[in-house]
Amino acid sequence: MQHTFTINTSQRMEIIDINRKVEEIVTNSGVKEGLCSIFVQHATAAIVINENYDPNICLDINDMLAKLIPQGKWRHDQVDGNADSHIKAAIIGPSETIPVKNSKLQLGRWQSIMLCEFDGPRSERTITVTIIKG
Amino acid sequence: MQHTFTINTSQRMEIIDINRKVEEIVTNSGVKEGLCSIFVQHATAAIVINENYDPNICLDINDMLAKLIPQGKWRHDQVDGNADSHIKAAIIGPSETIPVKNSKLQLGRWQSIMLCEFDGPRSERTITVTIIKG
Amino acid sequence: MQHTFTINTSQRMEIIDINRKVEEIVTNSGVKEGLCSIFVQHATAAIVINENYDPNICLDINDMLAKLIPQGKWRHDQVDGNADSHIKAAIIGPSETIPVKNSKLQLGRWQSIMLCEFDGPRSERTITVTIIKG
Repeated sequence: MQHTFTINTSQRMEIIDINRKVEEIVTNSGVKEGLCSIFVQHATAAIVINENYDPNICLDINDMLAKLIPQGKWRHDQVDGNADSHIKAAIIGPSETIPVKNSKLQLGRWQSIMLCEFDGPRSERTITVTIIKG
Repeated sequence: MQHTFTINTSQRMEIIDINRKVEEIVTNSGVKEGLCSIFVQHATAAIVINENYDPNICLDINDMLAKLIPQGKWRHDQVDGNADSHIKAAIIGPSETIPVKNSKLQLGRWQSIMLCEFDGPRSERTITVTIIKG
Repeated sequence: MQHTFTINTSQRMEIIDINRKVEEIVTNSGVKEGLCSIFVQHATAAIVINENYDPNICLDINDMLAKLIPQGKWRHDQVDGNADSHIKAAIIGPSETIPVKNSKLQLGRWQSIMLCEFDGPRSERTITVTIIKG
């Protein structure tokens, strides 16, 4: 079972919680036990799982990435001004895979699925959720 | 087929081999060919695959993370002293997916599955292994 | 359905597009909808998904990794001169999981699957592709 949705982003670097949307797709799939894969179809965005209760954690993740991978000093910047966005996306990666049990994502108490925007704002970022019966 | 187990950790930063435990779950599953997903249900721990024959490699990975992501200088540290643990967990990620063939994990000779503890010691870190028939 | 292939590499650090080979395996599998997992069976190589249209992006990713994780200053270097290769592989990770629809990888327009060589040249790097029906 596969479902694709899009979201829009409003900043150059931004981490957006998509947990509720993915949970809804898992519930609607009718799959009781198995795996859920989340994949973002862009080379300057990524999927991360971490805490969102204190939103400062997302800002800290972006501060760290911005410090280690500064903007404007890479080869690809001569073609397009977003080399740092590509490098950040390569480090975090476009997908996560999560166990499903009793039709629910088996996340820990402090884990949320989030989209990392590294080259926004964008009107449409596409995410595909695939659920496999175990 | 899904199995959850817990392990305890004894240091703040520690990389612990869980390969034998995961192999045992794969063997017991009876699945001959498919995929095995390992997922840790915490926002300050991660799963990594690398060499464990020379244990210095695990220390080197932690040295690098400690150097790039030092403790105590992030926003979330004003709420809780573990912002660096969250950032390290976000970089390494909570899961890995490995092919299964002939009821065995298809790892390379130098690859082991390991839990990364970034905010220990903890009495209980929960890991879920899901095996999918291919 | 599972398929293993090997490629040779020609430089110490090199990012090589394997997208066409993986696409071919997906087509031959006959699986219409599901997941495709790509796994490299080495502790000094990794799988990354990013842009390959401008090859400078791959050079930028390697420049960043070489800057943050320099060669020759780690504990494992006293045994073997490739500690940095192991650390880079741990950061990028050995696998990626991609949705399949209509017998095609559901990659974005600018996404390619690539092998990261961090300790080449090597005559044989082994990659296993597993396709699971959804």
